[in-house]
Amino acid sequence: MSRPKKNGYRPRRGKTKPKPKSTLPTVSVIPLGGVGEVGKNMLVIEYGDDIIVIDSGVKFPGEELLGIDLVIPDITYLVQNADKVRGIFLTHGHEDHIGGLPFTLKQIQVPVYGTRLTLGLVKNKLTEHGLIRDAKLHEITADDVVNVGAFQVEFFRVNHSIPDGIGIAVRTPAGLIVHSGDFKLDQTPVDDKVLEFSKLARYGDEGVMLFICDSTNVERPGYTPSERTVGDTFRSVFAKTDSRIIIATFASNVHRIQQVIDTAAEFNRKVAVVGRSMVTVVDVSQQLGYLNIPKGMLIEAEEIDRLPDNQVTIITTGSQGEPMAALTRMATNNHRQVAIRQGDTVIISATPIPGNEKLVSRTIDNLFRIGADVVYKEVANVHVSGHAAQQEIKLMLNFLRPKYVIPFHGEYRHQATFAKLGQTMGIPDEHILRVNIGERYEMNEEMVQMTGTVEAGSVMVDGIGVGDVGNIVLRDRHHLAQDGVVIAVVTIDKENGNVLAGPDLVSRGFVFVREAGDMLGEAKSRVKDALTGRNTGTTEWSVLKNLIRDTLNEFFYQKTKRRPIVLPIIMEI
Amino acid sequence: MSRPKKNGYRPRRGKTKPKPKSTLPTVSVIPLGGVGEVGKNMLVIEYGDDIIVIDSGVKFPGEELLGIDLVIPDITYLVQNADKVRGIFLTHGHEDHIGGLPFTLKQIQVPVYGTRLTLGLVKNKLTEHGLIRDAKLHEITADDVVNVGAFQVEFFRVNHSIPDGIGIAVRTPAGLIVHSGDFKLDQTPVDDKVLEFSKLARYGDEGVMLFICDSTNVERPGYTPSERTVGDTFRSVFAKTDSRIIIATFASNVHRIQQVIDTAAEFNRKVAVVGRSMVTVVDVSQQLGYLNIPKGMLIEAEEIDRLPDNQVTIITTGSQGEPMAALTRMATNNHRQVAIRQGDTVIISATPIPGNEKLVSRTIDNLFRIGADVVYKEVANVHVSGHAAQQEIKLMLNFLRPKYVIPFHGEYRHQATFAKLGQTMGIPDEHILRVNIGERYEMNEEMVQMTGTVEAGSVMVDGIGVGDVGNIVLRDRHHLAQDGVVIAVVTIDKENGNVLAGPDLVSRGFVFVREAGDMLGEAKSRVKDALTGRNTGTTEWSVLKNLIRDTLNEFFYQKTKRRPIVLPIIMEI
Repeated sequence: MSRPKKNGYRPRRGKTKPKPKSTLPTVSVIPLGGVGEVGKNMLVIEYGDDIIVIDSGVKFPGEELLGIDLVIPDITYLVQNADKVRGIFLTHGHEDHIGGLPFTLKQIQVPVYGTRLTLGLVKNKLTEHGLIRDAKLHEITADDVVNVGAFQVEFFRVNHSIPDGIGIAVRTPAGLIVHSGDFKLDQTPVDDKVLEFSKLARYGDEGVMLFICDSTNVERPGYTPSERTVGDTFRSVFAKTDSRIIIATFASNVHRIQQVIDTAAEFNRKVAVVGRSMVTVVDVSQQLGYLNIPKGMLIEAEEIDRLPDNQVTIITTGSQGEPMAALTRMATNNHRQVAIRQGDTVIISATPIPGNEKLVSRTIDNLFRIGADVVYKEVANVHVSGHAAQQEIKLMLNFLRPKYVIPFHGEYRHQATFAKLGQTMGIPDEHILRVNIGERYEMNEEMVQMTGTVEAGSVMVDGIGVGDVGNIVLRDRHHLAQDGVVIAVVTIDKENGNVLAGPDLVSRGFVFVREAGDMLGEAKSRVKDALTGRNTGTTEWSVLKNLIRDTLNEFFYQKTKRRPIVLPIIMEI
Repeated sequence: MSRPKKNGYRPRRGKTKPKPKSTLPTVSVIPLGGVGEVGKNMLVIEYGDDIIVIDSGVKFPGEELLGIDLVIPDITYLVQNADKVRGIFLTHGHEDHIGGLPFTLKQIQVPVYGTRLTLGLVKNKLTEHGLIRDAKLHEITADDVVNVGAFQVEFFRVNHSIPDGIGIAVRTPAGLIVHSGDFKLDQTPVDDKVLEFSKLARYGDEGVMLFICDSTNVERPGYTPSERTVGDTFRSVFAKTDSRIIIATFASNVHRIQQVIDTAAEFNRKVAVVGRSMVTVVDVSQQLGYLNIPKGMLIEAEEIDRLPDNQVTIITTGSQGEPMAALTRMATNNHRQVAIRQGDTVIISATPIPGNEKLVSRTIDNLFRIGADVVYKEVANVHVSGHAAQQEIKLMLNFLRPKYVIPFHGEYRHQATFAKLGQTMGIPDEHILRVNIGERYEMNEEMVQMTGTVEAGSVMVDGIGVGDVGNIVLRDRHHLAQDGVVIAVVTIDKENGNVLAGPDLVSRGFVFVREAGDMLGEAKSRVKDALTGRNTGTTEWSVLKNLIRDTLNEFFYQKTKRRPIVLPIIMEI
């Protein structure tokens, strides 16, 4: 598999004398999630009787998925091939990479490989789901090599917004596949662990057939700033206030938490940790050695009031304005332990995830109304991304010189923009694969091409129901949300179809009944008239139902220009 | 009212010898919308028997206002004082300033004052609502002076993202009030009409008691770039493609449209105008002389295919990804006249309005999938704001040197940030009023202070219903949207309460019935058992209903962890 060393980027081309197609070993790569979307990352690599999976994530539903709690990949293909699956390899501990694991492990029992912090977070999750006893968790380091079936799996350390993130290199019978994981290139990382260039250089020399690359920030020119720049902002804020300082950020951003602790130590402040997931992550990270907290630095939330304001730092969840999160409650005086007071300084150390803009905005508003000094992304450098921008992606491409690339972890626009970027570096457009969920890409030593599809897609989780809410239910929820529902009930004599009781009308979400009493009364008369006017004697439900539905649809639209769901119900006795 | 000239900013202080309070004339300022929010701008100025109103806007509902089409200010106060209202003065033709006019004029018949383009757009709107015949529209220019009741009203030209925008200066018996309108300071505006500094300087010298100032961009340091910078981007895009160019922008951004036309002319392309509101605005603007279109430049959409690609420009609506707008349809091959093709260049010359991010993202994705080259705000300077950034606001404050300021056209965070900015210029914090909708601020020659409130708030428009959807209906819609509805119908004998038919269960938006057939069957049995187990003979509806509701709520929550709305209906015969 080794290739001659080259200077600068030159995409690896096919051999000059290809073997006949049929004799070349063929490896399949099948994304089950994380392409054409940001979220629920999951990728399948298959050869003969061996399958490995990279990541098992969830996606948080947009507002259009009414009432849905989580979205996970459809893993029918893995269930059908359960006996082949040799292991799931996790790149890092974010929800969009590990959050689907409980749902996956309920369906297929397979070993799970991850670094220490990643598995620490996984263990919590599996314990909550009652799955920890049967889980086969294998802790790896970036220097390990794991042989599973036909695959040799290696790892390389990357920088990201959570520690202990790795990329994965898979040696397959058809060539080397490299998966970047979620990465950025931080030249001055908080934990001093820079992305492992040397391994990348080695893979590049060896020859990379397929590179699966984080494309989330491919639209951004330049480099993503170092996490340390946020620490500089913290220091400048700490330097100029004697009030309490409250910092909200993503619970999983352990580097950010470390910087809060370091800054607090520098300014002789203690730190209280508030919010369920923040407490969990700080616990796990500290136990496993990913957080370095001076003795006596942490205080309980109950102790805050015993300290002078200028010795208090509070680190909390709620940076996304989530209604139940700690900061949101503190800002509305609904938190058990902490209420934001006039004069407090609140740092929202995060960017709103698309869709959360209004919630965050509302929290900022509430904080200002209390009289807090709010420091947020519009007015200060309080957050940096964890994903590589264009220059970092280019560097990665030059290190690896892959023959084919799959832009991962992005919408279609990111895939398309990645293709443009790749072309400027001499990668042919058709070698940058804009892949869709469920497509099977077959790779041999010569080429990668799409050869078919497998059953795949999204499964919605609502309450404890997995997959019992589909498009019809969602369509009804949308319809109900727009215009509400009107139910019309009639009891008829099953012998002759005479109306014995009703019609009764009940509505919800349609119109304010006190204001619209007359209209509903009139609607009732219309239905009554329609039922009287019909050919008597019919007991054909569908005829009666259509009659009622049509009468009410027409009447309500004429009166209100709205179209509630009309549900006629016929009772027979 | 005249004040000595001063160098630099010095806030105007009260006189040294105040007259006794009771003898000072008092003017009230009451915002009915546009404070603590961006949208539905409306401000009342009142003295004795005279009221004038500045703007009458709408707000587009966020997704949380399920099914609502528009939100307008509650104008009860104006209706109660209809005989006092002398006129509505419009600052410019954007929907959040004129969109509420039809609803207002249906309730109070008053003269409307506006510049030519503003009234041109108003006329269209009133015609649609069948109100044009009775409307009393008065066209003004920035140089007019209008005396209404106790007020002398003057105007000054401002720059904004629509032509013909003005600010308003109102001389009142208690001093001078200046309202900025929506403004930016464009030193090189497309129509060469720079904001009228000289008038501002004059007002400053005269002495401004109260300044009502656009605060939308107060978080942004520096200056908002000139509209012309977008024209530069257009030119660079036009220069490098021979394909068709499609540009989506806000229909009301006539300067932007002018720049498209100018660039098209420069590159020997024709322009087709597509999308209802775009056609309307181009028509009105051209008729009134706000668009300068060379003869033969405009083509019909039908003619596009007769021209070579490199002679085609299409300007269209849909920059917000609105499902029914032209670009959205073109991108999904659902437009009657135009379909985007591989190789087309599409410029999205706009920023997503908060809440529209996902819709815009979806449209960009669709365009990329077709193979179009998409130019959007993440990758090029295709849009600039129409609102003043910090330096422009400071300049305005230095010109006017107001004693009191109301930051307008902003959320609370903008009001609070404005106060910080004002303080850096020596305006006392308590002179920057963070006002709420419905608060009455009384102003005399000495001071401005809050003295009470009037009836005010939001009125929701749904279909043709104005105000018939309130919080209860919205709460039900949210509940329906989250978990759907289950209806349980029972027919009972009114003599003895025996169940004659049912229970029947019907659900919508709760659970996929094919998957959950068993559960619904079991639910039915549970209700039947509960009804059988009750003390027979009760015909008390509320007892029966509660029994059914409790039984089903408990059962469904246990089975699904969801809480659909359960609607028991009892029929008696």
